Amino acid sequence: MNRQITLAARPQGYPRESDFNLVESPIPTPGSGRVLIRVIYLSLDPYMRGLMSGRRAYFPPVAIGDVMVGGTVGKVIQSNHPEYAKGDIVGGMFGWQEYAVSDGAGLRRIDPKVAPISTALGVLGMPGLTAYFGLLDVAKPRPGETIVISGAAGAVGAAAGQIAKMYGSRVVGTAGSDAKINYLVKELGFDAAFNYRSIENYYEALREICPDGINVYFDNVGGAMTDAVFRLLAPGARVAVCGQISQANLEQPESGPRLLQYLLVRQARAEGFLVTKFADRFPEALQQLTEWLLAGKLKYREDIVDGIENAPRAFIGMLNGRNMGKQLVKLSVP
Amino acid sequence: MNRQITLAARPQGYPRESDFNLVESPIPTPGSGRVLIRVIYLSLDPYMRGLMSGRRAYFPPVAIGDVMVGGTVGKVIQSNHPEYAKGDIVGGMFGWQEYAVSDGAGLRRIDPKVAPISTALGVLGMPGLTAYFGLLDVAKPRPGETIVISGAAGAVGAAAGQIAKMYGSRVVGTAGSDAKINYLVKELGFDAAFNYRSIENYYEALREICPDGINVYFDNVGGAMTDAVFRLLAPGARVAVCGQISQANLEQPESGPRLLQYLLVRQARAEGFLVTKFADRFPEALQQLTEWLLAGKLKYREDIVDGIENAPRAFIGMLNGRNMGKQLVKLSVP
Repeated sequence: MNRQITLAARPQGYPRESDFNLVESPIPTPGSGRVLIRVIYLSLDPYMRGLMSGRRAYFPPVAIGDVMVGGTVGKVIQSNHPEYAKGDIVGGMFGWQEYAVSDGAGLRRIDPKVAPISTALGVLGMPGLTAYFGLLDVAKPRPGETIVISGAAGAVGAAAGQIAKMYGSRVVGTAGSDAKINYLVKELGFDAAFNYRSIENYYEALREICPDGINVYFDNVGGAMTDAVFRLLAPGARVAVCGQISQANLEQPESGPRLLQYLLVRQARAEGFLVTKFADRFPEALQQLTEWLLAGKLKYREDIVDGIENAPRAFIGMLNGRNMGKQLVKLSVP
Repeated sequence: MNRQITLAARPQGYPRESDFNLVESPIPTPGSGRVLIRVIYLSLDPYMRGLMSGRRAYFPPVAIGDVMVGGTVGKVIQSNHPEYAKGDIVGGMFGWQEYAVSDGAGLRRIDPKVAPISTALGVLGMPGLTAYFGLLDVAKPRPGETIVISGAAGAVGAAAGQIAKMYGSRVVGTAGSDAKINYLVKELGFDAAFNYRSIENYYEALREICPDGINVYFDNVGGAMTDAVFRLLAPGARVAVCGQISQANLEQPESGPRLLQYLLVRQARAEGFLVTKFADRFPEALQQLTEWLLAGKLKYREDIVDGIENAPRAFIGMLNGRNMGKQLVKLSVP
């Protein structure tokens, strides 16, 4: 049988396990021109919270009763498609389920000899690409500039910080545990980092670390951290708005200080982006990210949970910052 | 004697006349390499409200007791400077006073044969340049796009709207009186405009006028109008943050809905700018603005008050939107 996680209810605030259903359906049969894939890794990402709401955000929302959307890596176990053979490792948006059929649209072949196939969901996948383009094409740091990354220990933030270091920035990260701070500074080479859960006044903390202001802000989080950063933006600063996860689980929209006046006075820019905008340049970026990975310049961690039945709990944990590294669910053995 | 308006007190909320002093001092004597200028027109502009506060914003604040800062046009009545002769008309930041001495720094010669010299403070001055660069270099409208301009009947907004029309945009303006709305639509050729004082739900009003969303927002105002516009930003929208005058007279900073999420989901950009950023391109822009003016493509209105003693009242009136056209004070006869 094909075990699947469907959306049971639209969450109020933080999702609960009861917002998901574990259902079983027969393993689908691939028709002509199609392949059957057994999913190996499912990626859990912050954007999925948005899909659980009824509002259209990046994508249309997931309907109640539908299989949850998600990026995956799997193995072709049956092929009626001329370009894919049994045994091929492929990536695609197969969702929170153990088996999926594809006609090849959106399918991407993954070479398991280059790197562990799970990296196709992290540093060599959507999060790595998001970091690459968000940093280099949206934020455009210059050598010697100070960059602050919120949610820095997440898959996107960690990659963005390391790339910024390679480009000569001074990199400051914020994250939600001392272990994450330690990881950022000791393992990833961040110049500074602080645990926002153990600090009350983000503004004072940032001002001490960034006495000359903040030239670039790579924002994964939004909310109070972003309010503090905006007050410290340096003239000509660039803000890459990558995520606003602090806002995703609120029952009511939150108010905050008006931020446009900081853009005005500092002649600064804030730009929202989705990685899909850069789709035609994914090959060049993946080549560069792979080079860095193989050269040991781009490190990553993974937090892998076993079994699709544990995906909802792992997802909720990730939204609460409990993962250490890219959150994956392992659905089958490669 | 030289009559001057000095800052008497830092305003709480909207400035009052008692926040200004009218003082007299001897007419200054120009030393070697200097000119004595009799001011003809003083420009009153929203940015001056910021200078009255103790906080540093664009410029250092005006100190209590100092002459108020302001752009002016005047006549050289005595010259010890090799490049200026008695009778020359010049522009510069001579402040709220009837006479000033200059060593030539920041002085700009104005040719009275080209256009009325008052335009050097409006459509051929800082407001016109702000509209030109804010629109063409920051907002970058494309033909057929919908642009919303807040504070559209102000000197900057009116010029920006007319330039946007020349570049093929559909132009929507907001302003604070029916007379201004009439002016925008009937005289300046705006496609639509509405009086925000007679409407409660800005979002519904804008949604009706902009059913396909807003591609460009030229923001002079901030606050609730900007909140409504952000909800309607189209994919790839650009926001030129030119002013936030609705926030300048608040006794306490105002909170509002968090706006970055709209930038994110619409892949939109907001950029603050000051016209000084484009100083090296002022000559090219002034040439273009002059051409448009002489061709009748760029219209303007002026609201001229007589006598420096009336400058504070006129300034307060302008902050309340009571002027119709560029607010000037006439200090002497050309």
